[in-house]
Amino acid sequence: MRVAIRLDDRDPDFESRFSAFLTTKREVSEDVDQAVRLIIEDVRARGDAALVEWTTKLDRFDVAASGLAVGADEVDAALAAVPAETLAALELARDRIAAHHARQKPVDDRYTDGIGVELGSKWTAVEAAGLYVPGGTASYPSSVLMNALPAKVAGVERLVMVVPTPDGKLNPLVLAAARLAGIDEIYRVGGAQAIAALAYGTATIAPVAKIVGPGNAYVAAAKRRVFGTVGIDMIAGPSEVLVIADRDNDPDWIAADLLAQAEHDTAAQAILMTDDAGLADAVEAAVVRQIARLPRGETAAASWRDFGAVILVANIAAAMPLANRIAAEHLELAVADPEPLLGLVRNAGAVFLGSHTPEVIGDYVGGSNHVLPTARSARFSSGLSVLDFMKRTSILKCGPDSLRLLGPAAIALAEAEGLAAHARSVAIRLNL
Amino acid sequence: MRVAIRLDDRDPDFESRFSAFLTTKREVSEDVDQAVRLIIEDVRARGDAALVEWTTKLDRFDVAASGLAVGADEVDAALAAVPAETLAALELARDRIAAHHARQKPVDDRYTDGIGVELGSKWTAVEAAGLYVPGGTASYPSSVLMNALPAKVAGVERLVMVVPTPDGKLNPLVLAAARLAGIDEIYRVGGAQAIAALAYGTATIAPVAKIVGPGNAYVAAAKRRVFGTVGIDMIAGPSEVLVIADRDNDPDWIAADLLAQAEHDTAAQAILMTDDAGLADAVEAAVVRQIARLPRGETAAASWRDFGAVILVANIAAAMPLANRIAAEHLELAVADPEPLLGLVRNAGAVFLGSHTPEVIGDYVGGSNHVLPTARSARFSSGLSVLDFMKRTSILKCGPDSLRLLGPAAIALAEAEGLAAHARSVAIRLNL
Repeated sequence: MRVAIRLDDRDPDFESRFSAFLTTKREVSEDVDQAVRLIIEDVRARGDAALVEWTTKLDRFDVAASGLAVGADEVDAALAAVPAETLAALELARDRIAAHHARQKPVDDRYTDGIGVELGSKWTAVEAAGLYVPGGTASYPSSVLMNALPAKVAGVERLVMVVPTPDGKLNPLVLAAARLAGIDEIYRVGGAQAIAALAYGTATIAPVAKIVGPGNAYVAAAKRRVFGTVGIDMIAGPSEVLVIADRDNDPDWIAADLLAQAEHDTAAQAILMTDDAGLADAVEAAVVRQIARLPRGETAAASWRDFGAVILVANIAAAMPLANRIAAEHLELAVADPEPLLGLVRNAGAVFLGSHTPEVIGDYVGGSNHVLPTARSARFSSGLSVLDFMKRTSILKCGPDSLRLLGPAAIALAEAEGLAAHARSVAIRLNL
Repeated sequence: MRVAIRLDDRDPDFESRFSAFLTTKREVSEDVDQAVRLIIEDVRARGDAALVEWTTKLDRFDVAASGLAVGADEVDAALAAVPAETLAALELARDRIAAHHARQKPVDDRYTDGIGVELGSKWTAVEAAGLYVPGGTASYPSSVLMNALPAKVAGVERLVMVVPTPDGKLNPLVLAAARLAGIDEIYRVGGAQAIAALAYGTATIAPVAKIVGPGNAYVAAAKRRVFGTVGIDMIAGPSEVLVIADRDNDPDWIAADLLAQAEHDTAAQAILMTDDAGLADAVEAAVVRQIARLPRGETAAASWRDFGAVILVANIAAAMPLANRIAAEHLELAVADPEPLLGLVRNAGAVFLGSHTPEVIGDYVGGSNHVLPTARSARFSSGLSVLDFMKRTSILKCGPDSLRLLGPAAIALAEAEGLAAHARSVAIRLNL
């Protein structure tokens, strides 16, 4: 089989090959914008009727018969059907995620400065949020927890889940996770039509102020369109991992981590960076061996073949500037002493320290969020957090004395900007 | 003249009229998306050549002759020409904004939980950011400070300003403010072509990771398009103020505050909410009187006529739920004791407490940011802050013992989700 590309930072053409590697597009961006615009306009104009029609057509089942809302009895039944071990694991994940995210709650600030001006900021939760959950094979209960719990911790009062049910089928684990996360409003709709309903509201679905969660090209395009009417989270792309490993690693462990990423999607990306050519060879061999035994081996093989990479570096310290350029969603530091390297991390969604922290722990039960910036967006954005469901109001208070001190400068700037009414609103209070 | 609408919360049709008022669109959204797509694709494909051509065409001057970059000598000259009083005011504003924003710097977190798992988060600055400054009459030095200083405080190393110069004209105060804010890379380009250059880079302009700053419909559409390749701030709309006033106010002061907002733009919005019909009448009369004397009186009159409102409430406490639905960019609480009302504020960009805090102080020298969520987006977003220029990397570390405790749950969830390679990456470390 054709395998991942190999780069070596001592090769003379390394920089050009590495640059090309960085800009390789892993997704074909479908141009669905026109279709999405029509769907959104239709749901906005006709509400539930449009929502039902699009759902019936695109998801191929009679949603009018089942009703848009998923009943509490359906959720009860789904929860009852979850095996005890899975339920216990979901509960452990929920509790750990909630505990970690509770530390992210921002603190209000209020102080008086040297001239008597009071300043501050006050944080409040978004009142209503919508959580998009994909249908079909990418319908993951862990993602329900990861998206819902930061909202719950933030104090969002109304949390609405939408999930498409192609051919009427709904993953019961997703409903169970929704119940465990405290979501009690669920609709069996998806695609751009669900995003439109959440943003603009219909008779059945009241509008929300923020929409989060991953989805296909239609969902992504719809989120981009409604941005501004509501808040949105990032536009999620295929997953990726960068493993930086020194020689003291079991090649089978590293190969398993690379494949855990590659099995997600043919567009997923797994990268090994090491200073040890022998380890690189051993990991590549282990990848090939392990792929053969994976149920999703074909997906993983395609990902490894098309987007996988092994990058040899002269030494581990040289790996970090390259890692910061890659800005991976997941960065494993499988080295004896990861702390100095952690200090050098600038761009990464999440870092996993040492050989006993496979990235998969973070996917499920570590407690940190698994909704992380992909496609190099860790250069400018962060994983999902409580802050995504809160907003800050700034506070300012002058008294007569501090206004007298600050006022003339405000007037000078207003006049310099040609805004006479601005100047007047200060001057009138100072009898100027 | 036709004046602002008046609503009274004791009228039987109040709710329907208030709802309609809330959803009134103040902007005609030009459909410029196709034009913007072409411009972005062109700059992406042809770089500087396209940037120069579009600039020459749209801004009507020979940018190839002057050069894309604004030289340090031009900035020196601009700074030297600023009147001493204006310069002092800009310096005061800069120092106060920097001091306030320094308090927003987030704190890293690192802790070990009850079962020995280490968790944490590490904040780092975006490496390069672009600041869009509009040209012409909306080219405000105060906005340069407000956009640049949070980036500087965050630790952004490279801060690039782009500003269109229609007919080759550049506001020297904007250059002076850039110098005071520490910006040393400035290009005389604007529109979608400038956004494309910042996002994708050209030979002259290296790409940035985040773009902030207000702009016209082309700029807004371009930012929406490049979102994901780079981070963007909010899509800014016309400004608005809501003044909640009790009877103990000077009508002229309140009218001046309403007009300070209305003079910005015919699409700006000024709203008075009061429990005192006498005050409402007096403020309306004062607005009419003051408009007559304003240089931008026509703009202010159009804004007040088309979008202004006076809302009478039975009592001041009843104002707050309405204020939270309006979710104003600026909220003045011109009441004797604003603190209890502040406690009830849920949705507002910034709150100004008491009659001696005109909103204009916040525009210039208060220290808080004047880049605030408009068009009801305070329901889900915040004013510009240091956090907009930073991102959080999450940290996770297990040892052999904590992995043994957490691993089985991760395996159970991976198997429930049908991700065998995920399960394997944990199991292999536990000899399972």
